[in-house]
Amino acid sequence: MTLDWTTRFSARAAGMTASEIRELLKLLDRPDVVSFAGGIPDPELFPADAVANAYERVLTSNERKLAALQYSVSEGYGPLRAHLAEGAGVGVENVLVTNGSQQGLDFIGKLFVGPGDRVLVTSPTYLGALQAFSPYEPAYDVVAMDEEGPLPDALEARLAAKPRFFYLVPDFQNPTGITVSLARREAIVALCARHGVPIVEDAAYTRLRYDGQDLPSLLELDRARAAGEGGFDAAGNVLYLGTFSKTLVPALRVGWVVAPADPLRRLVLIKQASDLHTSTINQMVALEVAMTTLDRQIPRLRAVYRERRDAMLAALSRHMPAGVSWSRPEGGMFVWLTLPAAVDGARLLARCVEGARVAFVPGAAFFPDRSGTNTIRLSFSLAKPEVAAPAIGRLAEAVGALAQ
Amino acid sequence: MTLDWTTRFSARAAGMTASEIRELLKLLDRPDVVSFAGGIPDPELFPADAVANAYERVLTSNERKLAALQYSVSEGYGPLRAHLAEGAGVGVENVLVTNGSQQGLDFIGKLFVGPGDRVLVTSPTYLGALQAFSPYEPAYDVVAMDEEGPLPDALEARLAAKPRFFYLVPDFQNPTGITVSLARREAIVALCARHGVPIVEDAAYTRLRYDGQDLPSLLELDRARAAGEGGFDAAGNVLYLGTFSKTLVPALRVGWVVAPADPLRRLVLIKQASDLHTSTINQMVALEVAMTTLDRQIPRLRAVYRERRDAMLAALSRHMPAGVSWSRPEGGMFVWLTLPAAVDGARLLARCVEGARVAFVPGAAFFPDRSGTNTIRLSFSLAKPEVAAPAIGRLAEAVGALAQ
Repeated sequence: MTLDWTTRFSARAAGMTASEIRELLKLLDRPDVVSFAGGIPDPELFPADAVANAYERVLTSNERKLAALQYSVSEGYGPLRAHLAEGAGVGVENVLVTNGSQQGLDFIGKLFVGPGDRVLVTSPTYLGALQAFSPYEPAYDVVAMDEEGPLPDALEARLAAKPRFFYLVPDFQNPTGITVSLARREAIVALCARHGVPIVEDAAYTRLRYDGQDLPSLLELDRARAAGEGGFDAAGNVLYLGTFSKTLVPALRVGWVVAPADPLRRLVLIKQASDLHTSTINQMVALEVAMTTLDRQIPRLRAVYRERRDAMLAALSRHMPAGVSWSRPEGGMFVWLTLPAAVDGARLLARCVEGARVAFVPGAAFFPDRSGTNTIRLSFSLAKPEVAAPAIGRLAEAVGALAQ
Repeated sequence: MTLDWTTRFSARAAGMTASEIRELLKLLDRPDVVSFAGGIPDPELFPADAVANAYERVLTSNERKLAALQYSVSEGYGPLRAHLAEGAGVGVENVLVTNGSQQGLDFIGKLFVGPGDRVLVTSPTYLGALQAFSPYEPAYDVVAMDEEGPLPDALEARLAAKPRFFYLVPDFQNPTGITVSLARREAIVALCARHGVPIVEDAAYTRLRYDGQDLPSLLELDRARAAGEGGFDAAGNVLYLGTFSKTLVPALRVGWVVAPADPLRRLVLIKQASDLHTSTINQMVALEVAMTTLDRQIPRLRAVYRERRDAMLAALSRHMPAGVSWSRPEGGMFVWLTLPAAVDGARLLARCVEGARVAFVPGAAFFPDRSGTNTIRLSFSLAKPEVAAPAIGRLAEAVGALAQ
């Protein structure tokens, strides 16, 4: 007689089910399949020697080695916080170190969201954010996007319903690759402040720009706005999520949140209750590697990923049948395809397991309402052109066959 | 005009306030104060060279170094899970790696507890567990303890109310130092299984035994019970929390949960949504250090901490006035003092800031109902006898003065 655990869990556990897509993608983790699925950095580009040197320096320093291995404060390692605060133009008291930016998303859900509370997201949006927020049982409101980002009129209509916050990936969005234009950024910051709805800005990909000019972050625009109203702590309206996972290495699990002092203090209490603090030694190593290699690492990443993006876009132009459109991202890791309405992305993936030997993520998972069934996300971060181009050709054939 | 963030947070955030005790203890972090407050390991006992060697081995291994720095699965690093599963007598599928056992407590709260759900704890209990569970808004039920652990009659009465789980630290409990006797363990396992109430066993201190014989864990007793009913996955009733923080080093942030397959799978989904995974490289290093040094490390820790415990107990006997009683723990890090009813632990601490120059944690924080105001917790893990003995003398004088 097996125990029925489902009756023992909280109501929120009912919504926790393994993603079918993830299960399917596990099957596709085979050497003969070309994967455009994961949004992960290329390990061949990791600054592995710099990381090894940093661990060695920290652990051979008589001043630092015991502190590096001991419990530390929930806020994060002081010198790392100071470094991050300087980069963001805020005070040390505005920075919390987290286990990657995913943990920042979880904590923001925990702080702001109770059952039935409205949370505003773009449609589509980052799947991991939906996974982080959903255990707190929000009702999602969505705002549509065009090539310049969220549509201001649609945003304003949604803000009137007073969602707990508006979550947005403004640069090279996961999954669409869309970058929010400067004019839209200014409109979003002004509208959200006027309606009293905090913005959660996810900047995971911001440093990975391959074309065009860097744009000011929503945080930066909001700080300028708040400067006239008593400063960031008094009037700031943005919670900003940063990470070293895309620029240095993911496995240190070091990200950060920047926020006005009041919500930041609450996030520190949440951090303490959740896992006490982020690995002390990893914080010290992240700071060392950031200070010694980030300036060299960024141009290197940009050159390699730019070439892969260009090769993928060229292959798409060459091979994709009429009726398929896609984004042309200025950075990040993702190209977003819209297929003919009759082509279901999940069905296409299932077919590609055997035939085309290509993997990707069907787009519906990124829509809170599971619409967008005729979309797919391709990552080019691991896509070496000589392998990727023929794989795009095979994918195009599979799309053509299903579109018949 | 400053924004009022409190109106923007979820209902659960209302209960998140910084601990007054913690704020007071920050003030006491001064070189002239002898602190018996924190329950932290002595950094002079860290296997720092072994940790440094492990990082070097992992990061100079061509096979492992890139994987060590990359994203990895939410369940945890396979060889570490296998090692932990073998130690616990369960399958790999029963183990999830977490950021210390504190994260296991948070995840168990997230999985089981919704607003108003009953959670059963001993009174007093580990403060960090209350902090982990409280954001999920439980109603605490408490069961009293004597020197052998929770009282079975009281436990049975509480189980009838069907709490979501019973949380217990059976070995050298934080804060009391109490170890649950074998007879009580058997009673607790049987009673909880009969009433269908899962046990959450926190084994943070289990390896730090200085006297007497190791006792079977509740997990072990429950596995034996479940063996007759289809096995651990079918009928197991214990979720077990382990950690390397007290035996190796805390800063790796590597702990683990052992549970039947059904709740374990849900905890993996929670891990994924919360922070994707625990630092890959730290998991590899924890495994290396555990395999190469844990067997040497444990006797070394036991010898040093045993001496400190003995010195503290001797000093208490020598100095404490009549009307003060204390526990005589067989292991762990804590001695628990019950003062005369008129002596308030928080008031005593405030007085000790200037006068006795001794710090400790007032006991009320460990009671869900904030009773136990005449109790205090002393940690001996950092208490070198030559410094600790006179400090206990000064503390005893302060107690005597307040008891007048």
